[in-house]
Amino acid sequence: MSNKKATVFVRLKDGVLDPQGITIQKAILNMGYDQVASVRSGRFFELEINAEGEQGDKKIEEICSKLLSNPVIENYTVEYEK
Amino acid sequence: MSNKKATVFVRLKDGVLDPQGITIQKAILNMGYDQVASVRSGRFFELEINAEGEQGDKKIEEICSKLLSNPVIENYTVEYEK
Repeated sequence: MSNKKATVFVRLKDGVLDPQGITIQKAILNMGYDQVASVRSGRFFELEINAEGEQGDKKIEEICSKLLSNPVIENYTVEYEK
Repeated sequence: MSNKKATVFVRLKDGVLDPQGITIQKAILNMGYDQVASVRSGRFFELEINAEGEQGDKKIEEICSKLLSNPVIENYTVEYEK
């Protein structure tokens, strides 16, 4: 069985307040850069999986929705690479 | 001046212990998925910038190294989109 790599990106849904992003934007302003219009923060996870084809994809989707993201306030996207 | 979007990915350097990733991997195992070989965690930031061309790029590089990442243990990559 070959190894498969998946990267899961978890970001806050549109309209959900992002205090971390706001704080970073303020810090950037305080550093003297006034060109930054907005900052949104997110997390990502790089998973290596020992499963082939669609079987692996299903597993990753389950892991994302059950463990890696909070579906009430967050969206996730998955990018696969061989 | 047009708006420019940059996404900054911050990940731990190779060899640096990732306790969050290890914890997530254990949680995945406890959920009954034994196919996940490794998990590495990271963060990303989506910045909107009011600056054109290379001027904006330089600003983002400075923000990354001074504010968004800890260069002792972390690497960052930047992806630009128009």
